[in-house]
This record gives sequence, C-alpha cells and structure tokens, in this order.
Amino acid sequence: MKITRVTVTPIAFKDGPLLNASGIHEPYALRSIIEIETDNGYIGLGESYGDAPALKILDLVKERLVGLDPFNLNGLRAIVRGVVAAMAPASNAGAELAPGSHASKAVSNAYSAFEVACLDAQARYLNVPLVDLLGGAVRKEIPFSAYLFFKYAQHIDSPYAPDAWGEALSEEQIVAQARKMIEENGFQSIKLKAGALAPEHEVACIKALRKAFPDAPLRIDPNGNWSLQTAIRMAELLGDDLQYYEDPTPGLEGMAELHRRTGLPLATNMVVTDFDELRRSVALDSVQIVLADHHYWGGLRDTQQLAKMCDVFGLGVSMHSNSHLGISLMAMSHVAAAVENLSYACDTHYPWQEPDEEVIQGGKLPIRNGCVQITDAPGLGVEVDQDQLRKLHQLYLECGIRQRDDVGQMRKYQPDWKTVKPRF
Amino acid sequence: MKITRVTVTPIAFKDGPLLNASGIHEPYALRSIIEIETDNGYIGLGESYGDAPALKILDLVKERLVGLDPFNLNGLRAIVRGVVAAMAPASNAGAELAPGSHASKAVSNAYSAFEVACLDAQARYLNVPLVDLLGGAVRKEIPFSAYLFFKYAQHIDSPYAPDAWGEALSEEQIVAQARKMIEENGFQSIKLKAGALAPEHEVACIKALRKAFPDAPLRIDPNGNWSLQTAIRMAELLGDDLQYYEDPTPGLEGMAELHRRTGLPLATNMVVTDFDELRRSVALDSVQIVLADHHYWGGLRDTQQLAKMCDVFGLGVSMHSNSHLGISLMAMSHVAAAVENLSYACDTHYPWQEPDEEVIQGGKLPIRNGCVQITDAPGLGVEVDQDQLRKLHQLYLECGIRQRDDVGQMRKYQPDWKTVKPRF
Repeated sequence: MKITRVTVTPIAFKDGPLLNASGIHEPYALRSIIEIETDNGYIGLGESYGDAPALKILDLVKERLVGLDPFNLNGLRAIVRGVVAAMAPASNAGAELAPGSHASKAVSNAYSAFEVACLDAQARYLNVPLVDLLGGAVRKEIPFSAYLFFKYAQHIDSPYAPDAWGEALSEEQIVAQARKMIEENGFQSIKLKAGALAPEHEVACIKALRKAFPDAPLRIDPNGNWSLQTAIRMAELLGDDLQYYEDPTPGLEGMAELHRRTGLPLATNMVVTDFDELRRSVALDSVQIVLADHHYWGGLRDTQQLAKMCDVFGLGVSMHSNSHLGISLMAMSHVAAAVENLSYACDTHYPWQEPDEEVIQGGKLPIRNGCVQITDAPGLGVEVDQDQLRKLHQLYLECGIRQRDDVGQMRKYQPDWKTVKPRF
Repeated sequence: MKITRVTVTPIAFKDGPLLNASGIHEPYALRSIIEIETDNGYIGLGESYGDAPALKILDLVKERLVGLDPFNLNGLRAIVRGVVAAMAPASNAGAELAPGSHASKAVSNAYSAFEVACLDAQARYLNVPLVDLLGGAVRKEIPFSAYLFFKYAQHIDSPYAPDAWGEALSEEQIVAQARKMIEENGFQSIKLKAGALAPEHEVACIKALRKAFPDAPLRIDPNGNWSLQTAIRMAELLGDDLQYYEDPTPGLEGMAELHRRTGLPLATNMVVTDFDELRRSVALDSVQIVLADHHYWGGLRDTQQLAKMCDVFGLGVSMHSNSHLGISLMAMSHVAAAVENLSYACDTHYPWQEPDEEVIQGGKLPIRNGCVQITDAPGLGVEVDQDQLRKLHQLYLECGIRQRDDVGQMRKYQPDWKTVKPRF
C-alpha cells in the first residue's frame, strides 16, 4: 500500500465569543482536514490545527508523502523531522493557552496530523475500526465532560447572528448553560473554563454548579491565570468541590508548590505538554493528572505511551480539547477507547460547534449520556462530506483569520487589554 | 478474523554446560512454541518460556482464546489477567538470573507469548512484515553481540557428545571462544557472562579480550553476584575497558551507589524488569541502560513503550536474552528494528543452539556481520518445521527437566554448592 495523494484543506467554522485567560475567541476557529489516498483505493482522514505556521509545515510534509507506505509511521516521522529541521518554525498564536501550538511541538503536531490519517487508512484497508490497531477497545462509550465558558451573547463585530447559547457571565447564566449542554448531551461531569473573570466570581459559579448538580464531578480551569497566592486562596474556597484543579497557576514549580500547599489533585494541559515536561513534573510532583491531546503529543500511539507512562508514575489521564470537528472527535475517542487507565471524562469543545458546520457525512456526531460511541465501522468510522468541506474551506478563504488571536480580538472590546500572566 | 485454535508445544533442546552466578546450565533448555490459527487461514507464531509454571498458565489461557480477534490485544490482556488472578502462580525456577520468570511477571509473560503470535497473525493477514505493525523499520540489520560463557567441555552426566565449543575457563580459552563466535557470526561487540569464577580472573579475561579485540565494545555481566565492594574494586581494574557494566551488584540501591562511586554506565536485566522498577530506578539513578526483553516486559508493544520511557528518562536501550530459538530471535529483531533509540547491540544465546535443533523451516537463521536481517516476508518471516517441532517436543518429554535448576545441576559437580548472593 502506497500513498498516492495527500490533501490538506484549511477550513474555518463559527466559534462563539468565549472568554478565556488570553482574551476572547474570534468569530471563526481554524482547522485543517487531511485526506490521504492510497494506490489500492483507501482514504485516511485526519484533522489538525489550521493556523498559518501549522499549515505551512503540513503543506511541506504532504508533498513528501507520496510513495510512502501508510504503515511506515517511523518513515513518516523521519520525513516530518526532515521538513521541520529544514525550516525554523514560528510559534503559533494561541500557544499561551494551547501549548500544543508552540514551535517546539512542530514535529509532533505535524506527525500526529498524518499519523491519524495513516492509521485510518491502515484500519480501512484492514476493514477494522481504528481502535483495533491500538490494541482494541476496552470501552466503546467514551465519556466526555460538559465544557462551560463565560461568554458574551454575540461577537462585537456581529459577523453572523448570535448563537443559541446566549450570554453567560453570571452564576445563573453559567448554570443555565450547563443545563442546556447536559440536556443536549447527557454529560455527567462539568468543566468551567475560568481565568477570565474575577476569581471569586468564578469560584461562586462553581458553587452554583455544585448546588444545581450535586452529584456531578466539577473542574475549574483558569489556564494558569491565577498567581500561586490566588490559586491557594481559591483552593480554600473551593474545598472539596473539585474533582480536579486544572492549571490554576503557571509553571511546573508553581503547580508543585500549589499541590504541596493544598493537597488538591492538579491537572494540566499547560505545564506537561511533552515527555520532557512529564519527566520534570514527575521529579517535582507538579501534577497528578495529565490531559492528553494526540494533536500535540505526537499522535495516537504516542498518546498511548503517555498514558502508559502516567500509569507507571501514578498519574491520572484525561483529555484536552481545542475547537474541533468530528474527525478529531473520533480520533480522540478511538485512542480513549484503547487507554485502559483513562481515569476521567475527556474535554471537548464539540457542543460549541454549529450543527450545519460539521465536515463529516451525516452532520454532527451524537453525544449520548455524555459519551461518544465507537462503532465497528472501518477506521475512524466517519467520511468527509465534500460539499461541507468546500463550504468550510470557502469560509476559511473569506474569514480573513490566519492565526488565532484571542488577545487582538479582546482589544476590540477593551482597547487597553494587555497580556498579563498571571492576571489575577 | 477470529482465533480458531491455539497450540502450545513445550520443547527441549541441548544446552551447553555454561557457568553462571547460580550454577551451571542443565543439558537441556526448555521453551514453548505457540501457534494460533485463525478462521481465515492464518497462523501466528510465538515462543516463550517452557518451565512448568509458565506452561500451566499458557495452557489455561490458550483455551480461552478461541473466538478472540487477534487484533484485540486488550481483550487478550484481560483474559490473561483473569486466568492469573484465578490462580496463585508459583515462582519459576531460574528467576534469580532471569527475573522475567518471577511469579509477579505471570501476566506480562503469558500476555507476551500470545501478543507476539497475535501480531504475527495480524501481519500475515496484512501481508506485511511484523515490524510494520510497530511503526516500520528504522533499521533492517539488527546488531547482536557475542555472548561468551565460562564453560566446561561437557556435562557431568554426558547425556550427549560434547559440543563444538570445548572448555572455556582460562583467558586463552575465552579469547578462543570469542574468536570462534565472531568468525561464525561477525559480531562487533562482546559480552562476557561472569559472576561464576573469581572476579579477578573474570576481569583478567576482559583484559585478554581487550587485547585480542582492541576495537570491540566489551561488557561483563556478573549477574548481581558481586558485592558492592567487589564491584567497585573490579570497576577500578576494568577502568575504561567497558562499554557498560551489566548487573555487577544486586539491588536498585546497590547499583545506584555503584554508579555514584564509579561513574560507570550500568546496564541491567535484573533490577529493572518492569515499569515499577523503572520508576524506582529513575528516582535513584540506579541504571543507565535497560536491557529490554519482550518475553517479560509484556510483549512487543510494551517493549516499545519501555524504549520510549528510556528515551524520556535519558536511558540507553539494549536487549536481554535467555536460551531461545528462531521465533524469539525474529520477535526480538522485529521490535529492535522499530525501536529508534536502540543504543547497543542486543544479547542473544542463539549461537549456542545446535544447528539441527532449530524449530523453524530452513534451520538456524544466519547472523552476518553480527546482525540479524529483517526481511519483507509477512509477519515474523519464519515458519514452523513441524518435524523439528515434534522432535524437540519428544526431547522435552524424554529429558525429564520441567523447571530450570542451575543450582541443582551444579550440585552434581560440587555437592556442597550453595546459593549465596552475592557470592563474591
């Protein structure tokens, strides 16, 4: 089996005015859709970052993949390394929230994008679900968590009609957002993206969620935007309300000190984003739960290796998410299905995506009882809707965004908005 | 694809009177040959331990594998766990030299035996070499090292004619053994199994090898049979002659102290034999090189995970070997082919096996320039010679050995032989 053609299509889709530690989401999120075709008629799909620096590398790599056997993943890695070594990749915007888009992750990011597509092609050729190439499913229902955001009712420049979620700034509005999201998806646990408003208010929202959903495990994620002192103070207020405390404060040392001081289980997608940081975190006891993300951890197999390492070092495993569509959702779900020690429901932005903006056939995948279901369909179990792909690519061409810039977007609301880390 | 039949055939083959830290090899070594058959006509091969406790588990597991998809390796692991949990496996004899046969390894050992066979069946079904399921070959020539032993000319009870190697007790005889082994196999590096004779004499043999083979990397393996003091004293004598110092002294703490005192790179197949010990070794800085062995590390994929972990923690990777035949040699070679950070030539006992006692078609695999070659043949690339399998099974039935007992065998030579650890 040889790769005969590789397509990387940048797309854009609507993204709500969601607040975070950096600023606010722009009206469109960017992704790339990867399709590899093989000489025996199989297609493998991938979904990755859509920022300009990422696309540049994907485009350079794709030209070198023709003739490669999709089983030759070590060969793929060598090609990606060669491309990245020959350039000096710039850091992607948004890296402060999603360290996966750091330039240092260029190899693992681009490798991952094509690794998933190669594994998908392998599995389709074998006529087995992709999870079978990862050892087989230990679960077929993958639990995800409700992912709440503080948000405005609409984007400041009103590029399209307001979304169905409305404003969410107050405790009541956050509880209402949770109710709607749980009603539609059946989530059993709840994560609140924080680090955006005053810490005391964000804690009050957790308290309101605790009252409204007494049995739901709760998480708060200030994206490293709280000082150690603030994080300790909020930990005292939060008491036993948290399932885990995600990236309250920056740095491996800060997290280690916070854990020593509070004893709370700390989770991260910010301070442990590669194996080297994992090694350092183990030495410092910085975090107790790693949020895996195959997009920057180097693909599905490396995510399994991360999970194994977490098992060895007594760390819990959950999963991180950026804005994404169904191909990424299924890639996350297939690897989650094979990871025995997946100890927490995974994160996903998926409920925030509009129903008419899915790139896979049949529209958005259902989340039932908070779970995505792995089927026995070959590969990732999804196919690209080429009309939708064209539509979202057109949106990419028209939207004008080429690199995520939550800070610049926030300056449209607050011209004096500055990047201060930690802000609180 | 479903498994329709599983065969586990215990075999025995001649083994020389090789001296080690425990005593001396018995006249026959035991192994098991695993054959799984699938409903679509594929065969998957494995080779594992042949001691009674190991066989008992393999036999219990094999009955439960009918109907399993060979791709469902997590399902296989669950079955093995169930079988082992339902019994209290006894420790295998020989565990003091080969910790892989400890009872605590029962799950990973039995899982590995069938995992290799399942991967082989997968690869044959796919018509690709097994290494392609492990990411593809980063090398096709797998380097092995000459594995020297102190030995007698023949077994005390003369069960068969003396082997072609003759006695090897003196410096001259060890150098002659190395010459013969290198002449026949082209090995580039040399390992001396030690811990058997007086340490000073063993060191003198290394000096003689250094003189005879000035460019060959040298290793000595006293199998933990030297006290810390002896190991330090011998380190002073060995100076810069060693590529690495393998298990000179027992225990993670002892090895850590030895490394602190000598600065020499320490290798092990004794103190880091599972992921938990790896974790402890990392904390103590006990060893700098791990000798992987898929037979007890839980199969080929877990060996890859071990290698990844070694990479993360800055440890070198080489490979350990017990007496084995060609199926194990090819399993070792396929995973070694996929492990990018294989930093040293692997160990193998293979040259010690008699040419007419190979269980694979075509007889013993060639080792050229010290390397085993990975081919593009499907799966492991070897087939069972059923006549040879019957012959070696017959030898198993007749040889009377059911558990390795190097101590008991030594008592035939020295009735007062005792297990003392460390002996020197």
